[in-house]
Parts: sequence; structure tokens; C-alpha cells
Amino acid sequence: MSDIAAILDHVDANLDASLERLFDLLRIPSISTDPEYKAECRRAGQWLVDDLNGMGFDASLRDTPGHPMVVAHYAGPDGSPHVLFYGHYDVQPADPLEKWNTPPFEPQRVTGTDGIERIYARGANDDKGQLMTFIEASRAWINETGRLPFSVTVLCEGEEESGSPSLDPFLKANKAELSRAVALVCDTGMWDPDTPAISTRLRGLAHEEVTIVGPRIDLHSGFYGGAAHNPIHVLMKILSDMRDGDGHIIIPGFYDGVPELPEATAKQWQGLNFDEAKFLGDIGLTAPAGEKGRSVLEMTWSRPTLEVNGIFGGYTGKGTKTVIPSEATAKVSMRLVGQQGPDHVLKVFRKFIEDRLPDGCKVRWGGRGEGSPGIEIPEDNPWLKKAAKALEDEWNRPAVMMGCGGSIPVVRSFEDILGMKSLLVGFGLPDDALHSPNEKYNLKCFHKGIRSWVRIIGELASA
Amino acid sequence: MSDIAAILDHVDANLDASLERLFDLLRIPSISTDPEYKAECRRAGQWLVDDLNGMGFDASLRDTPGHPMVVAHYAGPDGSPHVLFYGHYDVQPADPLEKWNTPPFEPQRVTGTDGIERIYARGANDDKGQLMTFIEASRAWINETGRLPFSVTVLCEGEEESGSPSLDPFLKANKAELSRAVALVCDTGMWDPDTPAISTRLRGLAHEEVTIVGPRIDLHSGFYGGAAHNPIHVLMKILSDMRDGDGHIIIPGFYDGVPELPEATAKQWQGLNFDEAKFLGDIGLTAPAGEKGRSVLEMTWSRPTLEVNGIFGGYTGKGTKTVIPSEATAKVSMRLVGQQGPDHVLKVFRKFIEDRLPDGCKVRWGGRGEGSPGIEIPEDNPWLKKAAKALEDEWNRPAVMMGCGGSIPVVRSFEDILGMKSLLVGFGLPDDALHSPNEKYNLKCFHKGIRSWVRIIGELASA
Repeated sequence: MSDIAAILDHVDANLDASLERLFDLLRIPSISTDPEYKAECRRAGQWLVDDLNGMGFDASLRDTPGHPMVVAHYAGPDGSPHVLFYGHYDVQPADPLEKWNTPPFEPQRVTGTDGIERIYARGANDDKGQLMTFIEASRAWINETGRLPFSVTVLCEGEEESGSPSLDPFLKANKAELSRAVALVCDTGMWDPDTPAISTRLRGLAHEEVTIVGPRIDLHSGFYGGAAHNPIHVLMKILSDMRDGDGHIIIPGFYDGVPELPEATAKQWQGLNFDEAKFLGDIGLTAPAGEKGRSVLEMTWSRPTLEVNGIFGGYTGKGTKTVIPSEATAKVSMRLVGQQGPDHVLKVFRKFIEDRLPDGCKVRWGGRGEGSPGIEIPEDNPWLKKAAKALEDEWNRPAVMMGCGGSIPVVRSFEDILGMKSLLVGFGLPDDALHSPNEKYNLKCFHKGIRSWVRIIGELASA
Repeated sequence: MSDIAAILDHVDANLDASLERLFDLLRIPSISTDPEYKAECRRAGQWLVDDLNGMGFDASLRDTPGHPMVVAHYAGPDGSPHVLFYGHYDVQPADPLEKWNTPPFEPQRVTGTDGIERIYARGANDDKGQLMTFIEASRAWINETGRLPFSVTVLCEGEEESGSPSLDPFLKANKAELSRAVALVCDTGMWDPDTPAISTRLRGLAHEEVTIVGPRIDLHSGFYGGAAHNPIHVLMKILSDMRDGDGHIIIPGFYDGVPELPEATAKQWQGLNFDEAKFLGDIGLTAPAGEKGRSVLEMTWSRPTLEVNGIFGGYTGKGTKTVIPSEATAKVSMRLVGQQGPDHVLKVFRKFIEDRLPDGCKVRWGGRGEGSPGIEIPEDNPWLKKAAKALEDEWNRPAVMMGCGGSIPVVRSFEDILGMKSLLVGFGLPDDALHSPNEKYNLKCFHKGIRSWVRIIGELASA
């Protein structure tokens, strides 16, 4: 019997004990955003420190201006790779409490009418359930073979759900200690309940707030209407002109650095038979917006966006007021991909507006003018290939190389501060109700998640 | 010496007494919108009743659900015309009080460093000063000749500054008593301090509130951005598409019933040498918006508008939120001219939007869908011609046939309920600070306003 087979048997035989440990952690209401739960956050961190020390790690709580970091080191065989594992022990608030079927901090294992077993609790997935898949896999390795086959540094923060204010300073202050060959991040999802995934694309983000200033004061629309520039009109017109009839952004230079999808990826995504009608139907829509000729997966995973997230100007109360306002404002964000640089994109965005201001109108920029580029793990990355093989071995189907339309700031920080790529492997499902009442994690996801990490650890350790 | 010359001398000789009476009325803080001043409103109405009865009118206070109406009748010679005079005895609130140089309800006669004498008080112009020009002219006629040369019904309301809720029901209930040959309305302005004016065009108004509904819930712009319709984009695009690059509204049927300006009027307006640069400069602009090839006077006096008075959707707080909102709303108003029908204009406006909704997006209408057409007094109207002659006699220059970009609801009500045209003659100036601190009325406007009415009364009475 190979090492791996024996370790997997160990995982199966000890699933109840793994669950008990997870439930212990889930019982701690480590809500990072609410100062009332400060001690609970520390208790959750300490729980991890104690657990990791018990496994043979050299673990400690490290204070920050906010909630403490858990840092734990494990020395593997000489010459073995040294990786970083990242998770977070804090959770979102649980309200509205009345919408939970079971108390959020009293984890339950419930078999649904569909025969599927699920773990219900705040943090069941995000991120306690997910991070414990890696820790339980490590425990199985150690218990069964006496040690982990590689060196690993575990970093768990307690502020992910409240904006990670201490993360970047901590990474900067502990650069040498935390810079490893690759980061394993377990905070993402699977393609579907039977198909594992590695998230290889994260879109970047740039923000700007644009205010068009027209008349110096609000005007009576009777006396001035027709002759006076209305900043709402100017704002609407310029922002609308940024897009052509086929949904392409026509700001010169906007697509600089946007790559076409590699053929292999395009083919894999086509093969997913993604149900666009269902995706849109779930949000009450019938047809996609976006660039004509692109699939919904392309639009959300591999194409940039330019989105007005908010707009306001003039009279917004009940009833009517015949005013021409002095100002109108839009909050705009852009999702970035490939080599699209946030500074460049913000520059061409601003220029497009400045070039089109009617005589006498002005523009005011309200954003901080910051942003971060997208992230892409090349599909020939050796760590990625090993992880993909391990996942295929466990699930008996290839792992999908997924995109993620959003951003995961820690991945950006690992790149920028530690110069380290991230491997995003997780076992969540779209219906896990993250940040919502009745958050859950399928038992199968937890169980096979542990088994998946057992295999990934084995693959990554093999030179 | 003609009657008129003698009456004008009487006006000049008794100006101080006229001012004393005006000051008495100005001292009453008849703020209609504030329930605390309810008794003061009644007191102002009663003051007018007493004054008119003293002059030989048959005057009384008439109760309404709000503030009372003043109705006063005077029977002129048999066979003489019977006109209605309209004014309002209520005023705007005076706050911010600290911005007044003199107490708002302690009227002062102040000679400025420019040598011009002005009356400062809330209501000095709007509308106590203006309505008293007519009453003092009537008094001069009666005192000098023993009677007025025509029959007149005076109607003064006390709710003009708070939306006139009782006006239409009162007109309907007293139709026979109030329907006269023509209404004289003294609530408008002069062209400049030396040039009298009659306002012959008032734009109508139609309102609608349009909400574009996209996704059924607010969405994360990372996960859905690119593929999901953003209702802010849809709203901006459709509203922008209503206007071409030259400022014309391209909604089919929008201009139905919009007349071209009569050549004579166009020529008169050109001759005014209106200072567009100053008009725009005063409001902080350098170039006009609106239809290319039209003058600012045309745009504000004789052309329709389509104006977004308010817009809101998505995140409008501080900072950023990467949301695709479920809805976005615009409050739209249209100024109407000529025969443009509000129902028709609202219909083609709604159709334009409905025709352009992307698949899966919906529209919700939030307005009451009401409106009123514009008003135009033809320049060959006999009352208008008489008034114009009288004004030219007094000011030694022709009265300008002005447009007014706004609406005066009472004129609409006189047309619709009483079937009566209005003659809009007033002596206000653009810098009179209506509704603002330090409202004023030039002494010359008051004095020559009285003299103007003396002459107009004479002209109107002459068969």
C-alpha cells in the first residue's frame, strides 16, 4: 500500500474526529468587524496555535494593531520545497439571526431531503471549513507517516472579513519569514459538486469618482432650461459614449494589455457547458449585457469591465423639483485583466472625459486614483500542474482552470510584497451562502477536500 | 388737463402715503407655508379687505381649507369692461434670517451708493409690492375722478408660495363670480429697469419618473460584471440617446405642435441685444447648451426642453462599493410650448424608452403622468395691444413681449377653469432677490408701476 493510499484511509477512518475539531473552531464567534468579539477572535487564533503546536508545528500568535496573526512553521525533509499556506480564522457577522434555521455558532451536521449531508454554521465554508481541510490533511500525513513531506509555513489572519488592515504591514515586516516557493490559498470554490477547480485568473480593480460641474449653483429649470448645461446630461452622455452598440469599451487604450484567451483554455471553458440562461435567470435577467460574441464565462472571467456602481445628481427625494443641478457624480469601477495597468486605464478614462467636456463645464475627480492589476497563473506553472494532477486523481475528472470575476486582495499582496505566486484551491460551492444566513459546507466537500490536500501535498513534495 | 394726467399727478403727489400703506402690509409676516403664521396670513387678507372696502369695493375674506381668499368687486360704468385682477398676499419664509441686512418684516426705504432708492422687505416685490401698484392706481382713479372707469374683481390668494392648494377648487366653486373678460396678473418682471414688458409666453410642464429595473437584486460587480445588465448604464444610454449632437430631441413626435417664432417676435427679440455671455457668466457657464442655431432667449422662451432634474442608482455613499444595482431612477421634466400636448409628449417619451429596453430589463413609471401645456397670448390680442400702448406711453419705449421659461400655475387655471386669458404685467427686476434674503423692489418700479396701471386701466376702459 502506497503512503498516499494509507493516508487517505486514515482520513476516512478519522473523519468524525476531524469534524469534531472543525466544530470546536466553528463554536468560537470570531467576528472580526465587531469590537465586542475581539476576545473571541484571539481565542480562535489561539485554538489554531494550540492545534498546530500539538501536530508538531512551531506555532504562535503574533500581535498586530488589530486581531493577531497565526504563524506556524513545519520543517520537512532537507531539500524539500517550502510552501506557505494561507487561511483566515475570522468570520462575517451572523445577522440577521432570525433567518438562520440553526444557531450560527452551534454547528450542526444535517442530512437534507436530497440525501446530502451538510455542515451548517457561520464559517462552515468561509474560511474555517476550508482552512481545516488543509490542516486535517497535514495531520493525516503526520499521523500516518510521521512527518509532512515538505516544509510549510501556515499564515492565518483574523481580519479578512474586515478589510485585512494589518496584512500588508505584517507581510512587509516579516518578508523573509513568509516568502516561500508558492502560496496555497484555500478560500475559493469548485466548478460543481463533482468537479474540482483551480482559480487561475482574478480580475484586478480600478476605481474613480467623477463629478461633472456645470452651473455654479442649482438653477430653476424654467428660467434656464434649454440654455444651461445640465451636468446630469453631460455625465450620462460621456459615460454612455464610452461603450459602442456591441458592448465594447471605445476609450482609446482601454484594452491595452488585455490578452486573448489561450486556445486550450477557451476549449476547456466551452466544454464546461456553462448554463448561461440559468446564470442569468437566477438574477432575474434573460440576456447578457457585455461584449457581443463573448460567452458569459469569458465576460466575467477574462474580460475587463467598466461599471458605474453609483450615480447621483439633482433632486432625489419624493415627488418633483424642477432643478438643473450644479453637479452630478458617478462612482465608476473597472475590472482589469492580463497586463492592463490600473494607472494607464484610469489615465485614458479621465482623458476620455476631459476631452468631451462641453465649454464651461468642469470635472472633479473624487477617487484616490488607485487600483491593482489582474492576476493570472500561467497554465504551465509547475505547481499548478502538480495540483491539477492531484485533484484529477481524487475526483476522477480534470480540474477546471476557473476565472474569478472578483479580486482576492491577499493574492495581490503575496505577489507585490512577497513576490510569490498563489495556487487557489478550494472546495466551496456556489450555494454555500457565504456572508448570508445558513452558511453551509457540504460534508463531501470537507471530506474530499482533506483527501485532495493529502494528494496535493504528496505531489508538491515530489521534486 | 386730461383725466389721466391729473390721476398721474395724484399718484406722484401721494407716493409717500402709498408707500406707508405698502409698508403696513409688508409688516405682516404672512408666511403661508408655516402653520405658525396662519393668523398673520388671515391678518394680511383682512388688511386688504379693509383697504378695498375703504376705497368703495365690496370686499370680503372667503374661507378655504387653507388660507382665505380676498374677493372684492367694484362696479364701473354700465357697459364698461369687467376684468379680474389677481395677486397674492402671502410670502415666502424669510430664513436664513442672518443673511438679511435689515429685518425682513420691518420694511425700509434705502438709497444705495448707486443713488437708487429701494424698498427692502420680504414681499417687497413678491407679491405685495406688485399687487399694491394696481391697488394704488385704482385708488388714484377713484380719488381723482370719483370712480374706476371699468368693473373689476380683485382676487388675492394666500397660498401662492405654498402650492395654491385651494385655488382651483375655489375657482371651480365660484366660476360665475370670477370669470371675467381678461385677467390682469401682476407677478412678473420688466425687461430691464427702463423697459417695460408683457409676458406673453409661459412654458408648460410635464413630469415623469423613470426607473430601469435590471437584475432582481444588487449584484457583486466582480462575479457578474460584464455579463449582467447594469440599469444605470441602460438609463444613461436611453436618456442620452434622446438628444442628438446638436441638442435636438430626437424622440419621434416630441416637437409635434411646437411653432416657429413669428417673424415680428423674432425680430423684436433680436433687437433686445440680450447679453448671452453675461446671462451664462452669471451662472458660471461660458457656452449655451440646447439646440444649435437658436439664441438663448429662444431656447428659454420659445423652445421645449427635456431635462433630467435628478438621477440616482447604486451606491451613493462615501468611498466605493463594487455593486451592480438592481435599479436606477431619473426624474425627468419637459417644458412645453405652443400646442405641445403633455399627454402626447409623455406618451412618446415613454415609448422611446420602452422601445429601447434591453431584453430582460424592465421599466417602472413613478410619476403621476400629469402635465400642462404652454400658454401663449397672441400678439394681436386686443387687451394686450391696449396694455402695450399704455406701457409705452409711461416708459417712452415699447414694451417687450417676453417669454417666461417657467410656468405660472394660476394662468393655467384661469385658462382651464374660467376660460380666461391673462395679461401678465409686472415691474420686478432680475435682481429683486425673490425668495431670498434682502428681497427688494426699486422705488421707481413701485412708483412707475402705479402710473403704468393708471394708464392701463384707462386704455382697457376705453371701448
